[in-house]
Amino acid sequence: MTSTIAPPVAPFVPRPAGSMFAPVAADIDEADRVFAATLAPYQGLFGPLVQHLRHYRGKRLRPALLLLAGKACGGITPPHHTLAAAVEMIHTATLVHDDVLDEADVRRHVSTVNAGWGNKVSILLGDMLFTHAFHLTSTVDGRACGIIGAATNRVCAGELRQVTERGNLNLTEADYYAVIDGKTAALTECCGRLGALYAGASEETADRLANYGRALGRAFQIADDLLDLVGDETTAGKTLGTDLQQQKLTLPVIHCLNRLPGGDADRLRERIRDGDGAAVLAALRRTESLAFARGRADELARAARAELAALPRSDARAVLEALPEWAVRREK
Amino acid sequence: MTSTIAPPVAPFVPRPAGSMFAPVAADIDEADRVFAATLAPYQGLFGPLVQHLRHYRGKRLRPALLLLAGKACGGITPPHHTLAAAVEMIHTATLVHDDVLDEADVRRHVSTVNAGWGNKVSILLGDMLFTHAFHLTSTVDGRACGIIGAATNRVCAGELRQVTERGNLNLTEADYYAVIDGKTAALTECCGRLGALYAGASEETADRLANYGRALGRAFQIADDLLDLVGDETTAGKTLGTDLQQQKLTLPVIHCLNRLPGGDADRLRERIRDGDGAAVLAALRRTESLAFARGRADELARAARAELAALPRSDARAVLEALPEWAVRREK
Repeated sequence: MTSTIAPPVAPFVPRPAGSMFAPVAADIDEADRVFAATLAPYQGLFGPLVQHLRHYRGKRLRPALLLLAGKACGGITPPHHTLAAAVEMIHTATLVHDDVLDEADVRRHVSTVNAGWGNKVSILLGDMLFTHAFHLTSTVDGRACGIIGAATNRVCAGELRQVTERGNLNLTEADYYAVIDGKTAALTECCGRLGALYAGASEETADRLANYGRALGRAFQIADDLLDLVGDETTAGKTLGTDLQQQKLTLPVIHCLNRLPGGDADRLRERIRDGDGAAVLAALRRTESLAFARGRADELARAARAELAALPRSDARAVLEALPEWAVRREK
Repeated sequence: MTSTIAPPVAPFVPRPAGSMFAPVAADIDEADRVFAATLAPYQGLFGPLVQHLRHYRGKRLRPALLLLAGKACGGITPPHHTLAAAVEMIHTATLVHDDVLDEADVRRHVSTVNAGWGNKVSILLGDMLFTHAFHLTSTVDGRACGIIGAATNRVCAGELRQVTERGNLNLTEADYYAVIDGKTAALTECCGRLGALYAGASEETADRLANYGRALGRAFQIADDLLDLVGDETTAGKTLGTDLQQQKLTLPVIHCLNRLPGGDADRLRERIRDGDGAAVLAALRRTESLAFARGRADELARAARAELAALPRSDARAVLEALPEWAVRREK
């Protein structure tokens, strides 16, 4: 399934994800069809519920990454579409359960599954999406089941860690990476690996694309955490971001607490507990912690791009090269 | 891994599950070791939580069934222990999530995960058990992933159906079987099939053991639903069983509603909504609906045993033959 759409031209200006993924747009559609066909047997019994899941569709970052890696490494094959649907299904399962965990009523301007059907239905729907993703993967082969199973283990352990570490205001940078690997980078790493392997790439190339996916996922998550902390200019400093409201420490705050003298660090922990956004932001600026986190995200974006050096030039490779820059520069 | 313990002698008197499974006792221990080893990496981070799961261990019906089927069909191999651990892990995942769904504080006289750690940890722990079960299965092969994936799809869809049908006092017998297949029989069917296949049995024998597992699971669940409805003699008729309290219809009640003239059936629906246990029990006796459900369970037990006819005689086969009788006659 090839695309005739021209590759993006350098220098790349971040654009909405939809058009960025043009070289694999038709393949993303095919993965969406596999996703829908997998849940089609439930249209009769749980029609509105299954229909509602379309509101959970976002950037399609994970299937796009898997498909772009496949295209850049030799070409897209039918297993790619199946696996792209499976990783999107796993991502959707985690979103459905996340909304229960966060007691969220709204996602992408539409009511969440838990708001509409209650927590019980949400828990079971999430479970069902997990099991269908695994069953779908088993139609490819046992190797894919092993790779997706291992990644999903890390996703769940990372999420559990984030919940159990909530309120721990002594989180280390290493703890933070363990959490974001679970939240984001384990699955993007898996997408890079699967895309390469099912295009017939060598183990070495698959490792490189896996490294690419992990670095991209980490950069993306650091940028996400920065956006949560700083928000847009009108609200910055007035309220804490969602993460700090939930007593979840992210990279800039961890850096800041490490840089401040002991007494000041303890006072900042009190300000976090009090929900004093202005004091937190002032401290972050004093220690240049926002710049530090942006620097880390930029480093990871560069590291991601470096993993692509040995790939032949193609429209898919060009998008993979541009993706880390978009991940760290996007504004939402 | 063979056992030197003598097979049960006929006529079989139902006994506690532990001694019933004597021919595969050492193999159940081995499956328990695989289960524990799979979660061992989390002892450091989530030690008390992982330890607490031992309170969720019950009869080990599912691993025992898988191992007995393996032993009766040619012999137990290392994949049997891995798969037995995986099915027990899936069962445990559903119990952890069920306790959230039922807002249960106590299971087996010990506080539930949700009571001790909250719903968020319970949801994520359940997810983690699901993903580890799938990853564990992938260490066997893709075929096992497909069989376990398909069974778990039915488990989750059945549970979702039970939740969405709650309050539907017009449930049919066919609906009821769809619910109990999800709740119990899909996984016991899968255990019979896997046990046979990984002992090198033919597809035909595997189908017979799968049929055995499905009939056993249905008989077990009908007996369970009868126990919930009738309870012990001291409480029978005084309060509704848990199922009716939650407006879940089970086989005797469905039969009773079908047998009563229209006006009486509507009045019984009102009594169910009112929580009038005495009126419900009187109606069930009038239509002989408890006897009908016991008869159905007995039929299923006989059908299960009939599937074993072609197997060579062995201690494992003797236990499989006795198991349906135990499933329908047990008192808790």
